[in-house]
Amino acid sequence: MNEFIDLIYKRRSIRKFTDKKISQEILEELLKAGMAGPSAMNAQPWEFVVVTDPAQLKKFQRSLMFAKQDYTAIICVCGSRRVQKNKAGDRFWVQDCAAATENILLAATSLGLGSVWIGVHPITIYTRQVRAILNLPEDVTPLNIIGLGYPAEEKEPRTQYEESRVHWQVYGPAEKRHLHFFKHRKNETVLEQTKEE
Amino acid sequence: MNEFIDLIYKRRSIRKFTDKKISQEILEELLKAGMAGPSAMNAQPWEFVVVTDPAQLKKFQRSLMFAKQDYTAIICVCGSRRVQKNKAGDRFWVQDCAAATENILLAATSLGLGSVWIGVHPITIYTRQVRAILNLPEDVTPLNIIGLGYPAEEKEPRTQYEESRVHWQVYGPAEKRHLHFFKHRKNETVLEQTKEE
Repeated sequence: MNEFIDLIYKRRSIRKFTDKKISQEILEELLKAGMAGPSAMNAQPWEFVVVTDPAQLKKFQRSLMFAKQDYTAIICVCGSRRVQKNKAGDRFWVQDCAAATENILLAATSLGLGSVWIGVHPITIYTRQVRAILNLPEDVTPLNIIGLGYPAEEKEPRTQYEESRVHWQVYGPAEKRHLHFFKHRKNETVLEQTKEE
Repeated sequence: MNEFIDLIYKRRSIRKFTDKKISQEILEELLKAGMAGPSAMNAQPWEFVVVTDPAQLKKFQRSLMFAKQDYTAIICVCGSRRVQKNKAGDRFWVQDCAAATENILLAATSLGLGSVWIGVHPITIYTRQVRAILNLPEDVTPLNIIGLGYPAEEKEPRTQYEESRVHWQVYGPAEKRHLHFFKHRKNETVLEQTKEE
């Protein structure tokens, strides 16, 4: 449809990387893209820890089951009660930080990087491990770690669109009929007959 | 940095719309962008309800506090236990659906549409209202509604980047020092002195 949507299709989980380092400038671009994301009531309930030090990266590779790859950088996206601008963050931080994460993945793709979203929260053991490695305080929770690097594998662009997952006006065809009758004739008998059609 | 990142900056919450309708083709493009998003273990724990019928749209405008705008279409992004491809969806559906949502918002921006993310889950009253309007079954939970239309307002592109929200290698300067000493000299006395510096 357009180049931008092509790029959304191009973002795939990349798990093989070259040893080429990512520049500081590019890492900051990714963070700027992340912090351009929407958040509930603009609470911006996020902080980010960037890891490029090989000794620190090793700790992730050794401890986290799903983080064995040779990324040259990691961004850990955290929900943070200490910096959120209002209480909306308490309930919406997961969504807000996930949107920031998707922005980072897409920006990375646009800059020729490979990336992989490694889920952490709400898995207790992973949360504890990441907390220990990054020395996160109590009120800062790691949502995920994004593994980054220059890609050493290619994947086909794609959507996983399935028409059956899309409903129009109201959920499901049976429910649509139900709602129609419910709306126009508030009559239990008619309603039950309709269900059996 | 590039046109794609410019577009990430350009995505802003738009709440004023013209009455021009969005074509079926474009709505499907948005859904394809949504379903190109990543999900934990590729569970794809999502379903979508698209509302374009003015009578249905009115119901949202009448009942939901944050949904009073004159959008010409709504996409309700739902977490769905009935279609998820594996159990990872149980714990990661909020993140997965939030990433799909961000894809839809960005795709909408790239197609000249305005959009606004209206949070629903985990606010009980909103969840109940949306569930009633869309007739959602028990195992399908509305994460949000995306209000869509051709924009009748303009906003400046922006990031809300703040350097203080970014940490390098480890969280916070005090903690960095702490970890450094912890790593190099496993000595309680030294550690405590360091904390008091």
